Formats: sequence, structure tokens, C-alpha cells
Amino acid sequence: MIVALLGAGVVPAETPILRADDLGAVRGDGVFETMHVRGGEPWLLDEHLARMGRSAARLAISLPSTEELTALAAQACAAWDPAVEGALRLICTRGPDSGGDPTVYATLGPVGEAILRGRRDGIAVRTLPLGVDAEARVSSPWLLAGAKTLSYAVNMASLRAAGAAGADDALWVSADGYALEGPTATLVWLTDGTLCTVPAERTGILAGTTARHLLDRAGELGYRTDERLIRPEELAATDGVWLTSSVRGAVEIRSLDEKPLGPSAETARIQKLLGFTA
Amino acid sequence: MIVALLGAGVVPAETPILRADDLGAVRGDGVFETMHVRGGEPWLLDEHLARMGRSAARLAISLPSTEELTALAAQACAAWDPAVEGALRLICTRGPDSGGDPTVYATLGPVGEAILRGRRDGIAVRTLPLGVDAEARVSSPWLLAGAKTLSYAVNMASLRAAGAAGADDALWVSADGYALEGPTATLVWLTDGTLCTVPAERTGILAGTTARHLLDRAGELGYRTDERLIRPEELAATDGVWLTSSVRGAVEIRSLDEKPLGPSAETARIQKLLGFTA
Repeated sequence: MIVALLGAGVVPAETPILRADDLGAVRGDGVFETMHVRGGEPWLLDEHLARMGRSAARLAISLPSTEELTALAAQACAAWDPAVEGALRLICTRGPDSGGDPTVYATLGPVGEAILRGRRDGIAVRTLPLGVDAEARVSSPWLLAGAKTLSYAVNMASLRAAGAAGADDALWVSADGYALEGPTATLVWLTDGTLCTVPAERTGILAGTTARHLLDRAGELGYRTDERLIRPEELAATDGVWLTSSVRGAVEIRSLDEKPLGPSAETARIQKLLGFTA
Repeated sequence: MIVALLGAGVVPAETPILRADDLGAVRGDGVFETMHVRGGEPWLLDEHLARMGRSAARLAISLPSTEELTALAAQACAAWDPAVEGALRLICTRGPDSGGDPTVYATLGPVGEAILRGRRDGIAVRTLPLGVDAEARVSSPWLLAGAKTLSYAVNMASLRAAGAAGADDALWVSADGYALEGPTATLVWLTDGTLCTVPAERTGILAGTTARHLLDRAGELGYRTDERLIRPEELAATDGVWLTSSVRGAVEIRSLDEKPLGPSAETARIQKLLGFTA
């Protein structure tokens, strides 16, 4: 793993860099982005930095400039073998509780085996209730809907719960029965030639950078696009269902709550459009 | 601030101790407890360690033994002036993402001026919708109801939202209209000689250690006790409303959404029972 610290550049990965009272560590109080690194460059860097800026604004954290963050990402990438795909994470915490600047750093590591397998073979997904109605969070900004914060304990617990049920990933479902998003991914499906995703502004899910990029280019594959709500039980009648994220690209959901889905002939075309080969 | 690290003892507070990929920092993936330090000793240490054990079990984190955590707390306290009240935090993260043991440490610092003022003068509180029904979370263990995790971004954002509305603290309200808890405190109220709090097991709020201690000793003040649900608008008709937590003790809510409450003649008696003087 490569670690680069704003202002210091690349440091040994095992060097401790966060103080005991860093609010990122004691309160999960910070924001982050994860990006795919291909050919030694972060994919869709500008789009991820724009979203990081929106997250930081919702938390009232002073994010460094786009130029500084771009330079930090470049420092990490310069230390990485460009022939190897990687996962780059940019992190900005609120900084030490006792005062001082935000803590800003990058980590860059290899893409996990489970992700490579998911691209090739698809994944099994388990639905998990999230307890809130689909449109309940957007009117309560303190719930930080749509902000990608460091407070991911529920996300990680959801992935563990899915794993304990024999699945590879989770799909959160609102209290009123709509599919929302995965703990670290966006839901995308194809139905009657229309490539769809869940509306982020209405639901407070994280606006998926990869899903946005895919829908913006979907015309190249002959698809129309739409944002709409869907119930999990309706996904079986579609022409393909995927989870998208930067490092995964698009992985096809091949079973949902143990009921088989797909395979979709569109998976390879979508992955190719996103620059991935399964 | 004092910092003590499991296995290393007291280290300089400004020394970085967490690696860049510590899951506490990048995922808010860990548990903690905060305790009042009085006379150089942590108050209700055993009760807090028991709750920390329950939190760690819900996150499937291997917490060090009670003996090790007790010794860590003692190391921090030994470096603290026993004449000064303090706030001790014990933290256990899942450890580095690249593998290895949990990161376990203690911080010990002074009690903030706002807390001392709240004990003396009471506080203004703002209700904030939490988006979930009162009893929705307990059947979904991946939502980590009742676990005190490091993922406190929503808690901190709620405190900022209350502050922006001119209040000192927040009270979360369920989608079905019941008062739940504060972002870092438990709700307690007195009505017809009965000291009440919100049932933790039914609602998935954090089981308050200070509130439990207070209710267990409430007979000494001549109160009966009960756990029940209440709507915020019903609090005005009670004989006193408090937020309780270890470092605050009990602070009286003197206004709720800008409507005056109290003062209650019971505040001083309750604070004295808890070992605090306003």
C-alpha cells in the first residue's frame, strides 16, 4: 500500500499519521472518495473531487483545493506500478479535536480478489432493511444523506450481515419497500432498453459517480436512461441488474435473496464501456 | 490531554498513533466509551466496560480483556491531576485494514466549559427528526442500534444543526413521533413522582449508563422509576426533563424548541445523587 500525506508526500505505509484525538478516528467525522487507478491515473478524478467537495460542505469541513487534492493523488499514483490496477482513497478528516487543520491523505492499494471475481462471475446479493422511508432523509440535512463520510460502521456491518447470509454484497431497502443502494455501490438495472438507477436527490442515497458516468454514455450502447424507484421483487423481471462503483465498475447481480437473476448479455458491453474487462 | 496506548502506556499527545488504513479512521469502524474522572478515578468504569463489550460484540471486534482495559484507564488516570475533573475516552478500532490487532487507546482531557455551564444553568434543546420509527431498528442488527461506535458523523452533524438553531443540544425524534435520545446523552424525565427514561431494548437507542445508575438509585430520592415512550410535546407537562451522560451527569432541559421548561427543584438533588455539584 502507498500512503501520501498532504504537505509531506509519500510516507512509509506503516507510519502512524493520525493523532489519538483526530476526529476522523474518534467520531468518523470526515469525508472520503475511492477511485479506480488505471494506467497509473485515477479514473474520473474530477467527478470524485466534485462529490468530495459536496460531502465536505454538508459536514462543514474545509476541504483543500482541487489542485492540492489532485497533486496528492498524483503523488500516490507516481509511486504505483501503472501496469497494475489500483484502488485510490482520498481522505479528509476534520482534524484533531484539540484544534488544527484537517488531516488529508491518500492510500493506494491493489484491487481485491473478490472484486475481480465479481466482475467475471457476478455476485449474490442480500436485501437488508434500512429502517427509513425512501424519501425521509432528504429533508433532514443532519442525517447527512448523500454525503460520503468516514462513518461507515453500518455499511461494514451490512456487508458482514450479507456475508453471514452467504451473499457477496447487500442491497438496502427502505421501510416503504424500495431498493436504495448497496453499502458501497449504486444499483443500476436495464428494463425495456432503458438503463435505470435510483434517484439520489429524492432519496438521499449517495449519488454514484460510476452510475452517472455510465448513464451519461448509455446512448453509445443504444439505451435510453431514467431515474426511478423500484421494489426489489420487481428486479427479477428486468433485463439485467448491476452494482456499480469506481473500483468494481459494474458487477452483475446473479442472485437476489437466493433467487437467480440473469445472466445478462449486456454485462460485458457495460463493463467495456466503463473501461473494464471481466 | 493525556494519551495512553495499550501496550505502550502514556505517549505524548501529539504523537500520531493510527496508521493511514486504520479502520477506525477510514470506516469509523470501532467502539468507544466516555467516562467522568473524579478524584483521579473513572466513574462507573465497570458498567462502561460492560457496555463497550456489548458494542464490540455487535461489531464482531475482539476487545481486550476487562483487566487490560482497566489497566489502560489507570495508566491515563495516573498521569492526571486528581483534583481536576476529567473526561476519559477508551477507544478500540478494528485495526489496520491490511491486518493486525485492534488499535486500543485512552485519551483523558478536561471537562469543557459548556458542560459546566449546562450543569449550572440548564440547556436549550432542539428536536430533530431521525427518520426511523421508534421500534424499527432493533430487528435489523446491521443498523448497530445500541452499539456505541466511532461512526458519529450524524451525531456531530445533529449537534451542529442544533447549534445553528441557537440550541445547546439536540433530541432525536422518531418518524412516528417519539422522543428517542440525544446525540451523546440519554433523556430522563420526572412525572407524578416517577423518574422515567426511554426503553433501550425496544427502541435501539444507546442504553445510558448514567441514566441506568440514576434510575437504580432513584428510590433514595423517593421516586418510582419506569421506562416508557413519550412524545416531545408531552415533556412540557412533566416535573423536570434532563439529558444525562457520564461527563455531564444530569443537565436540565430549560427549553425545548424555544418553549421554556422548568426549572425543576429536583435538578440539584439528582446532580448530588450522581456526585456532581452544579
